[in-house]
Amino acid sequence: MLHMSKYFLHGSLVAKPNSQKELTQIMIQASKLMKTANGCELYIVSTDPADTQTVWITEIWTTKQDHENSLSATGVRELISKAIPLLDQPPTKGQELTVISN
Amino acid sequence: MLHMSKYFLHGSLVAKPNSQKELTQIMIQASKLMKTANGCELYIVSTDPADTQTVWITEIWTTKQDHENSLSATGVRELISKAIPLLDQPPTKGQELTVISN
Repeated sequence: MLHMSKYFLHGSLVAKPNSQKELTQIMIQASKLMKTANGCELYIVSTDPADTQTVWITEIWTTKQDHENSLSATGVRELISKAIPLLDQPPTKGQELTVISN
Repeated sequence: MLHMSKYFLHGSLVAKPNSQKELTQIMIQASKLMKTANGCELYIVSTDPADTQTVWITEIWTTKQDHENSLSATGVRELISKAIPLLDQPPTKGQELTVISN
């Protein structure tokens, strides 16, 4: 079997002013759910102390397809629908990398 | 005891043309060493398939001080001295974040 490179995604969501904390709470719930998803090897929620609106999400998935599949799980879709109204701008794609070593 | 926020660092090194692979090998060695260092909770080496020069390093440390201490360990300094001549530009600071959930 060929070696499959793990999929690494580092991206951010920008909350409306005063909504960062609420968005962070939703993303913590998402991380708990994602960690049970097939192929999820890492799911980090972080913030920049100097930025009061952005929430950073850093993920490793066994394959990119595993990541895509996770987005359509029922609980995840509910959390996405809670997060969308808190956003100040549409989500961007994020930085897509290939894990060499972890 | 107060909760200490974990230190998250996401940054890159840019290798000279044709040196990305060699730099990656050095960073894999560094990751093995770093994972034994006090406070190192994550050390990922990754690349962007569309970029033939950059190597990305993503780290979580229990404290920022743990990260700083790690850089002066003997083996790490040796690896840094091997990596420096391969770089196309001086290392930049990278993105410093605070882990909320991992």
